[in-house]
Amino acid sequence: LESGALSKVRRMLNAMAAVDIAHLLEASTPKVRKVLWELVDKESEGEVLQHLSDELQGHFLSDMSAEEVADVTADLDTDDVADMLQQLPERVTQEVLSSMDRQDRVRIESILEYPEDCAGGLMNTDTVTIRPDITLEVTLRYLRRHKTLPDMTDNLLVVNRQNEFIGVLPINKLLVSDPQQTVREVMNTDSKVIHADLHETEVAKLFERHDLVSAPVVNLAGELLGRITIDDVVDVIRENADHSLMSMAGLDEEEDTFAPAMKTSRRRAVWLGINLITAFIASAVIGLFDKTIEQVVALAVLMPIVASMGGIAGSQVLTLVIRGQALGHLSGANFRWLFNRELIVAGVNGSLWALVIAAITFVWFNDPIIAAIIGAAIIINLFVAAISGAALPLILKARGIDPALAGSVILTTVTDVVGFLSFLGLATIFYL
Amino acid sequence: LESGALSKVRRMLNAMAAVDIAHLLEASTPKVRKVLWELVDKESEGEVLQHLSDELQGHFLSDMSAEEVADVTADLDTDDVADMLQQLPERVTQEVLSSMDRQDRVRIESILEYPEDCAGGLMNTDTVTIRPDITLEVTLRYLRRHKTLPDMTDNLLVVNRQNEFIGVLPINKLLVSDPQQTVREVMNTDSKVIHADLHETEVAKLFERHDLVSAPVVNLAGELLGRITIDDVVDVIRENADHSLMSMAGLDEEEDTFAPAMKTSRRRAVWLGINLITAFIASAVIGLFDKTIEQVVALAVLMPIVASMGGIAGSQVLTLVIRGQALGHLSGANFRWLFNRELIVAGVNGSLWALVIAAITFVWFNDPIIAAIIGAAIIINLFVAAISGAALPLILKARGIDPALAGSVILTTVTDVVGFLSFLGLATIFYL
Repeated sequence: LESGALSKVRRMLNAMAAVDIAHLLEASTPKVRKVLWELVDKESEGEVLQHLSDELQGHFLSDMSAEEVADVTADLDTDDVADMLQQLPERVTQEVLSSMDRQDRVRIESILEYPEDCAGGLMNTDTVTIRPDITLEVTLRYLRRHKTLPDMTDNLLVVNRQNEFIGVLPINKLLVSDPQQTVREVMNTDSKVIHADLHETEVAKLFERHDLVSAPVVNLAGELLGRITIDDVVDVIRENADHSLMSMAGLDEEEDTFAPAMKTSRRRAVWLGINLITAFIASAVIGLFDKTIEQVVALAVLMPIVASMGGIAGSQVLTLVIRGQALGHLSGANFRWLFNRELIVAGVNGSLWALVIAAITFVWFNDPIIAAIIGAAIIINLFVAAISGAALPLILKARGIDPALAGSVILTTVTDVVGFLSFLGLATIFYL
Repeated sequence: LESGALSKVRRMLNAMAAVDIAHLLEASTPKVRKVLWELVDKESEGEVLQHLSDELQGHFLSDMSAEEVADVTADLDTDDVADMLQQLPERVTQEVLSSMDRQDRVRIESILEYPEDCAGGLMNTDTVTIRPDITLEVTLRYLRRHKTLPDMTDNLLVVNRQNEFIGVLPINKLLVSDPQQTVREVMNTDSKVIHADLHETEVAKLFERHDLVSAPVVNLAGELLGRITIDDVVDVIRENADHSLMSMAGLDEEEDTFAPAMKTSRRRAVWLGINLITAFIASAVIGLFDKTIEQVVALAVLMPIVASMGGIAGSQVLTLVIRGQALGHLSGANFRWLFNRELIVAGVNGSLWALVIAAITFVWFNDPIIAAIIGAAIIINLFVAAISGAALPLILKARGIDPALAGSVILTTVTDVVGFLSFLGLATIFYL
């Protein structure tokens, strides 16, 4: 690119909204990304950073000095600054904080006290608070003294002198009520309040179920700390939903689509290595029956069918249960029902496909024994697939292991081993 | 359950919020679900229905007469009523509509004109509209004449006499501006406007990128039809994200966790049948080499490793590309880069794991030829896996086929066939 074209690109780029620049960066290859980032105006950098995925934020922030970070984040919402600082090493974070003005530092430190994945880490401190004893008319005059109100201010938060949260005054109620009434008479005291240490998944469920735009966050003493807004919750919902999909393929939900080849290779290698272990376990099982296979080669031809049908049937149950867990559908009582239902399904589909596969096998090899054996092995493997697909997520979750990440590897190992064992084992009994 | 306990359950149930009753129904087994539904108060039925998944809505609605449907939906938002009617047969929908009062019917028919999955089907008609020439003071007085404002009213919509959309007056701006100014002076004319035929996925992207709470919907003539609110968009985001996860296991994103056994069996049978075809194709490939396997049984022991490593590597690429498509990251130019990156990753990981697998094979079977052959087959299959994992989603999408649904089946067929073909083919060349 010559410098003339470059300055044209610079103009076009900086005419875009920050969120669109961020999207363009995420959808660019590393080299283009680097060039584009250098063309972004200094004063827009903070806003662009805020819209990038964690991985890319960390990438660009790691090239900046502490003062530069403090500089570009100066105009951002406190929760977004806190998010960014969590991508930096502890030492740099401290440096950045110490180069901020006192008020900002105190606010951001109050967010950093909480883990990134709980309400305290998700909240923003830009609340509009009022006292309960003033009238709505005074409230309206007070609001008019502001130049702007924070985005997504659907509620004014009512606190007492000790900053303890008392209730919310919905803006929509403020607008339709008699101005002579007091805040206390009009406010809602039964609105949803979020404790700072509630996990973000639970926060998202509250927002989804009760159609919230924002919700106040309090500490254990009931003091108002800040508020969470729906835009940040939408990100949580998106990430949680992506998590199951990506984890089942051994990927991270924050995975950069355009990560460099070497970084990608290293990450993928781990997953391939884990799966190689399961593949060798399956091979070892086949190895036990090499004498049988030597006599009846048809067994080698047919054995992948048994393993594969088990894997497919199992992964359907596994996916359904993992989604059910995420939606909060599964408890002790109804899990028993689900488990029994899956056994019935395995019985019905096992018998159906065992018959089909046995028939095809009989036509192909003209051997009734091998047809009967493969039918029996299919039924056995579909039952085992149903049991492990349903039980694995519960067992793993109880042990604090992520079912989406570990579930499919373990399931495949089980259905491969049982598939080969039942098919080749039965064959050994009948042929040798 | 005796009748005493039942009436206690009834009291507890109807003390719950409609959304929590809906969640309880979704998390219940069919029998419990039926009992609970009968206990729900008639006047709450509509609100509970509105929070249920499409499948369950359809289930309960199909047991009701047209008048009953019109009755329970009378107090609901128009967009929710339209959603429900779409679960019913056309004939019943017409009956329900004709038993509604005129105003409701006209509103709901205007939504039903649009497909369920576009902006027109997602919108609500409960807008608060104002004219541009009035002052903010008059606007405030006009609002005070309302008893309540619709939920999530963050903007008043400004229209001219022809009902053409002109701009929005954010409530937050109304509250901080000089009351003597006119709406025209204060309103935003550059806010996001959504055309009624925009697909819901694009609507969700607009809301996510621009942190919207609500957005006006217009027709091609620029007339205001209604507005879309974030609560409905959150449902779209959740469903779209679930779609990829569930489709890859051949499941539907609206799948009822507690569907009856027979219904479940029938649905799953289809997916197993499709996968059986791919399994038999792989078997047929192995069958081509039965003479080779007869001579060297170790081939039968090792061949699943080649197929399985290809499947795992391919599904990682496939998942990444499908997610990239959903996020709108992939275009012609950067896809070439991604494709090349995946070839490099396949080269690096192929060589690495080929060496490891060859070494283990050599130690296990003490045969340098079979070790070299499996190493070569692994490299070949990892390259093919990278190419198909990256290319398949693009090819399928271009042909209007859902990559999440069809991608993994086709990918597995390719990696199985190539895995067996390369390993057993090379062995045939070297051993026979």
